[in-house]
Amino acid sequence: MWRDLSPIGRAASGGYFRQPFTSAERECAAWFVEQAARRGLTVETDGIGNMVAWWGPADGPAVVTGSHLDSVLDGGAFDGPLGVVSALAAVDLLRARGVQPDKRLGVSVFVEEEGSRFPLACLGSRLAVGTTTPDQAATMTDRDGVSFEAAMVAAGLSPDLGPSRWLRDVSAFVELHVEQGRHLVDVDEPVALASQIWPHGRYRFEFTGEANHAGTTRMEDRRDPMLSYAVTALAANKQARLAGQRATFGRVAVEPNGTNAIPSKVTAWLDARCDSPQRQADLVAAIERQARERCERDGTSLVVVAESVSAAVEFDPALADQIGGHLPRIPTQAGHDAGILSAAGIPTAMLFVRNPTGVSHSPAEHAELHDCLAGVDALAAVLEGLIR
Amino acid sequence: MWRDLSPIGRAASGGYFRQPFTSAERECAAWFVEQAARRGLTVETDGIGNMVAWWGPADGPAVVTGSHLDSVLDGGAFDGPLGVVSALAAVDLLRARGVQPDKRLGVSVFVEEEGSRFPLACLGSRLAVGTTTPDQAATMTDRDGVSFEAAMVAAGLSPDLGPSRWLRDVSAFVELHVEQGRHLVDVDEPVALASQIWPHGRYRFEFTGEANHAGTTRMEDRRDPMLSYAVTALAANKQARLAGQRATFGRVAVEPNGTNAIPSKVTAWLDARCDSPQRQADLVAAIERQARERCERDGTSLVVVAESVSAAVEFDPALADQIGGHLPRIPTQAGHDAGILSAAGIPTAMLFVRNPTGVSHSPAEHAELHDCLAGVDALAAVLEGLIR
Repeated sequence: MWRDLSPIGRAASGGYFRQPFTSAERECAAWFVEQAARRGLTVETDGIGNMVAWWGPADGPAVVTGSHLDSVLDGGAFDGPLGVVSALAAVDLLRARGVQPDKRLGVSVFVEEEGSRFPLACLGSRLAVGTTTPDQAATMTDRDGVSFEAAMVAAGLSPDLGPSRWLRDVSAFVELHVEQGRHLVDVDEPVALASQIWPHGRYRFEFTGEANHAGTTRMEDRRDPMLSYAVTALAANKQARLAGQRATFGRVAVEPNGTNAIPSKVTAWLDARCDSPQRQADLVAAIERQARERCERDGTSLVVVAESVSAAVEFDPALADQIGGHLPRIPTQAGHDAGILSAAGIPTAMLFVRNPTGVSHSPAEHAELHDCLAGVDALAAVLEGLIR
Repeated sequence: MWRDLSPIGRAASGGYFRQPFTSAERECAAWFVEQAARRGLTVETDGIGNMVAWWGPADGPAVVTGSHLDSVLDGGAFDGPLGVVSALAAVDLLRARGVQPDKRLGVSVFVEEEGSRFPLACLGSRLAVGTTTPDQAATMTDRDGVSFEAAMVAAGLSPDLGPSRWLRDVSAFVELHVEQGRHLVDVDEPVALASQIWPHGRYRFEFTGEANHAGTTRMEDRRDPMLSYAVTALAANKQARLAGQRATFGRVAVEPNGTNAIPSKVTAWLDARCDSPQRQADLVAAIERQARERCERDGTSLVVVAESVSAAVEFDPALADQIGGHLPRIPTQAGHDAGILSAAGIPTAMLFVRNPTGVSHSPAEHAELHDCLAGVDALAAVLEGLIR
């Protein structure tokens, strides 16, 4: 299965560009339909573009496992596809063991998990459970001004963005994912169960100063927002280290962004994730305080806008006890479709497979074959318990 | 004259967009031709697009004064046009006084002084004196891939980028310009003479780290080039303050520039200007040293490329003594066509008119009417001495 997927949407960097409804991502979707057909599974596609391939009884309560096939810009091979490939492999393994499902087992693929094309991550699962409404989705466009619906139509799909019918009977959802950190390297285990998703927020920091000539303006006459931003980026890193949390400035826009011009404005986005909402609020407040102190010194001004703040997701503890009593439990700082489904009331679990470097959202993302097989084995065991 | 020019190429910000060979800049050029015609001056246009309007004898040694009509992106009203308007007003004043020129007096307009469209500032004067060759110009394009020659043709001009014939007989060049700093505010004078142009360099700093997930990557596992850059931007400011020189990071490019991604690369451009080449070298070395120390700590790497380094220009001291013994003399940190002509061996002088805020390259750039009139008066006196 990896051999089929590996060339699709691959760039010279070795990274993947599989944005939703692009030809590369549609090729991945076609691959999934073909894999389902080979196994005699019945594929159901909803009006959002999410797919599920059914094995077992035609109706009744269902257990679903899967992940996504889209990627971030220049992403790795494992984030998403590992969960889909492992789900299909787990079906193969269960069949080879002669398991007959009492409940329907679905292998699912949600669209636009990464938010690499539209401005909201997990848009496919959010629409499927109704957390995001079709009206809200209609206001979102990609960088070229194309809406989600228009992108679906251009890809030959028939949009109907209301909640998905196929999710109604799901009694458990399990997502297997490559780990995006180094917890499992540290504890020397191939597979773990997720305990929770950390609260997560994106905050836009707008530093305004005064545009001026970089040569002729004396240092003491400047109101340079680049300096205010630089101190803030360092403060974010320091505060997160001190608190044992995460804070990153990875995106910056400078106006007018000319070599010989002191900027009039620097806009930068803070990504902050913490192990509790209180620590999240404290961390952001500490960073903002240091930013404002420096702005005062620089003669610049600051506006902070919380663009999105997600609450913590606690995965179902009963389900975790039932399926993975022996596995280590680790939190994750990344958003996942499993988090959306869990927040919508579906009992949900996540399995993580060891990533030797911890690197993710990058061509360097990796998982060793023996760890991937351990992941399939663990997933098959979990599913076997759930479908009988 | 100001009333005609003020609406041309003006944006909602109040700033000007008069990039070379665009319709706004061509409208300014047409205004100049019309002003020359009203005064009975003979306009000569070279194959580069530079113009000169002659008064007095048909040939023989010439004195030229002028500036430029193009602007930076979102620039002010005075940078460039003040020198052209003042030159025409000085001709009016001399004629009103009954002065008859023994030498030809030219009022000149050089194209692409700001480098706002093509990658090299003062391209019009550089081509005119031959410092930049037509072959070198052929390698330069604007952001849309249009060459200087193609831009001229599109504007209805006939390019011939070799050195200008009309500059051959010029025995003195005088450029009047709005001050781009606050020297004249401090010394409480309306007009000054330029002593020198500081050495100036542009250096590209490329910080390379490792792209990774902003949520899941522990702070201690990161190699984040944004931090190395932030320290460098602060170091540049601090070192320039300590040394009494100028250093600015006004342009930044981040890859992949995503909110949830630790950057793989941050490229930033240092603009450094000092009162001597040695201090320039020392300043850049001090900034680079602090940058490398921080890179070591961040696990990032740094490549520094000097994109352009211009030597100091000392304006002709004999000419300055002859024309402006009573005026204060101040250095400038900005490049000018006068600097190009001076470096090419033409005796050159510059006059600066007070700018109450010191702000330049911005819609806030300003000069008071009485200071502008003092500038015209000083320029007329200088020219009267030179053309008789």
